[in-house]
Amino acid sequence: MNFISLIQIKRDGGRLSDEQIHWLITEFSADRIPDYQMSSMLMAVFKEGLDTDELAAWTNAMLHSGDTLDFSHVAAPKIDKHSTGGVGDKVSIPLVPIVAACGIAVPMISGRGLGHTGGTLDKLETIPGFRTALDPPEFSRILEQHGMVLAGQSETLVPADRRIYALRDVSGTVPSIPLISSSIMSKKLAEGLDGLVLDVKVGSGAFMKGLDQAHELATTMVGIGRSHGTTVTALITDMSQPLGKEVGNANEMRESIEVLRGGGPSDLVELTLRLGSEMLVLGGIAHDLSAGRVQMEAVVASGAAFEKFQEVVAAQGGDTSVLDDPGLLPTARNEHAIIADRSGIVIKADALDIGVGAARLGAGRETKDDVIDPGVGTTVAARIGDEIEAGTVLATLRYNNDVNLANAIELTEAAFVIGDGPAEVAPLVHAEVR
Amino acid sequence: MNFISLIQIKRDGGRLSDEQIHWLITEFSADRIPDYQMSSMLMAVFKEGLDTDELAAWTNAMLHSGDTLDFSHVAAPKIDKHSTGGVGDKVSIPLVPIVAACGIAVPMISGRGLGHTGGTLDKLETIPGFRTALDPPEFSRILEQHGMVLAGQSETLVPADRRIYALRDVSGTVPSIPLISSSIMSKKLAEGLDGLVLDVKVGSGAFMKGLDQAHELATTMVGIGRSHGTTVTALITDMSQPLGKEVGNANEMRESIEVLRGGGPSDLVELTLRLGSEMLVLGGIAHDLSAGRVQMEAVVASGAAFEKFQEVVAAQGGDTSVLDDPGLLPTARNEHAIIADRSGIVIKADALDIGVGAARLGAGRETKDDVIDPGVGTTVAARIGDEIEAGTVLATLRYNNDVNLANAIELTEAAFVIGDGPAEVAPLVHAEVR
Repeated sequence: MNFISLIQIKRDGGRLSDEQIHWLITEFSADRIPDYQMSSMLMAVFKEGLDTDELAAWTNAMLHSGDTLDFSHVAAPKIDKHSTGGVGDKVSIPLVPIVAACGIAVPMISGRGLGHTGGTLDKLETIPGFRTALDPPEFSRILEQHGMVLAGQSETLVPADRRIYALRDVSGTVPSIPLISSSIMSKKLAEGLDGLVLDVKVGSGAFMKGLDQAHELATTMVGIGRSHGTTVTALITDMSQPLGKEVGNANEMRESIEVLRGGGPSDLVELTLRLGSEMLVLGGIAHDLSAGRVQMEAVVASGAAFEKFQEVVAAQGGDTSVLDDPGLLPTARNEHAIIADRSGIVIKADALDIGVGAARLGAGRETKDDVIDPGVGTTVAARIGDEIEAGTVLATLRYNNDVNLANAIELTEAAFVIGDGPAEVAPLVHAEVR
Repeated sequence: MNFISLIQIKRDGGRLSDEQIHWLITEFSADRIPDYQMSSMLMAVFKEGLDTDELAAWTNAMLHSGDTLDFSHVAAPKIDKHSTGGVGDKVSIPLVPIVAACGIAVPMISGRGLGHTGGTLDKLETIPGFRTALDPPEFSRILEQHGMVLAGQSETLVPADRRIYALRDVSGTVPSIPLISSSIMSKKLAEGLDGLVLDVKVGSGAFMKGLDQAHELATTMVGIGRSHGTTVTALITDMSQPLGKEVGNANEMRESIEVLRGGGPSDLVELTLRLGSEMLVLGGIAHDLSAGRVQMEAVVASGAAFEKFQEVVAAQGGDTSVLDDPGLLPTARNEHAIIADRSGIVIKADALDIGVGAARLGAGRETKDDVIDPGVGTTVAARIGDEIEAGTVLATLRYNNDVNLANAIELTEAAFVIGDGPAEVAPLVHAEVR
């Protein structure tokens, strides 16, 4: 096969066959296609898209570019959740122990934060000693023993994605629905799941800014699941303002522990229960969403979910004392309040501005090699629709470095707009795709 | 400036500024932008195009990526001709001495054949000793002394084009009108011309298969000339069948000499006169096309054009005895006739099939490193519209190697279709763009 002729087919809006797609992904992974040809192909895919069959073949070829996981020896239904990423999105941390305590097995592989979006691994690693780099036997053993595991991606899982993602990042081909979908789904399907719940974020703090785009992404990923024979449910959820009150790392861990203990902000609790009940239904543990919700509330109330988390933190080498006393988690030395300069209704509490502001405090990364400061971040006090007085604290910036603070203040101030109302309050869940 | 952001602008259908284009061409030429980013940009340009201003900036940046020629010391009007390439297109060889004999200075830089299209340099080099690699002072001196020079491109002229062309070739981004136009025009404008006549070929043996495409290419190149302040005239001419009777190298040289001596096939003579009279008008040597034609016919009839060619061949180290006795030029040892199997009208004498057939005989190159056999080629006896008897010779394959012959026969046979008529005979000149 000749790679240039495949570029020409896609460039001119044609269809690539299963065999051609398998060949191109395999050859690229094996370093037999130069980057300058693959980047041209990626731009052609960006412009011309992939149809359902092409996308199934593309995802399948990526999925089989390395090892795949096999948890057939785990009797419990294996269901995972994936979020496309947002600001303050710590849902995985309370969610996984809750559904695991209900009887779902969750082999969750997470990522690190980049840009304005946080990463579950960074938040987990604020627990002293917690190891997210697990080799496959250990990953499998923890899942088997505890019904859940929270780790980073191993080098051998979907190596094609790592190579393609790195090239997309430098060739201007990141925001392509087929390329995003195949990247996410190849990694999740390599986990050998029985079902998957997707949380597709929409709004300023999300990758997808508009509902149409988010819907297309959700539908595309559900379609890939269908082609692969794996049931996938997607919720399109709001990311116009941050999820919960905390944006950062250790502060998000503290908020997650609150949820596991029966507290936490209502939007975070609601989304956790909503996504979890979908997982319970997919896994056949609950017969409908409201039954799932009841089961989840019960394991939180009984303490079983929190104990499950303690158990797994210990199994992954973490110091469980910080779970009992979250004040021991890293904290910033200083704080700066952002104050409302007028009374009125909160019209905007922009997730992107707040997320970039927190990243500038040191909570996030500009590039993959940056080191984060686990204790810094932003506590958001005001939500869209709140009626407030002049002088109210809108947000608190928690910082260790004056230059970082100076870089974050203006942006975080600009995130908030106070007006005479009415404010447009987006629903937490915009839509479902099954 | 950030190259990825420029890719994103073009990818999303935006406009690049003059400054951005200048930067990206300069940086790529200087090896400071990796090929995998440039190929992604080239595919984005392929898909989204370049508007008039972008194209002027792109061409200008390429043109200034290396040395430019300055013939301001040459008093005669400097006019060149460029053909987009076809089968049997040897026009430059008789044309340049004829217009030079009329008083035009032609600093012609030509290329080599690739695929089914022949190259002027290969044909010139069938003259023993003829040197096409001239350094700039020698190129300039020959132009000044003889009013014409026929050479290959030096390394220092438009180096950006060499780099971009090599990358287009392997990244599926060759047939893009803005990329083709800027490649051609940057090289021609670097010659420091007063005017340029373009011969845009259309038909099976041309790069542009359809008239709309050819028209777009012609219009785009004329527009680049206008932006640059150089007058450009384009003729869109037929390449559905080969030009003249000879397809190859030494046999095309022989046919060119015939034209310079007042003979030659009528289509080749007509196109030579047509393009040349445009050059004479552009250069202000003739006040209109018919006056130009009269002047050209006069220098052919007087022998002045043939003498001019002899003069320049000698100046470039060539053995002029082959001009007096073209039988001394390389010839193939064997010949094979393609015979009409029925009587009727010639409906098709396909330029592409005949061109590929001749290339398979050894007259052309598959890749840039292939070596051509100067003596082989095809003599085409039948033209579209001819009424013929069964048993007539349609073409003669001239070959040195039986395997090559076997590879060429079927294709050359398939080039000819004999029917009951009527045949659609395309005009020699389809359109003019000024």
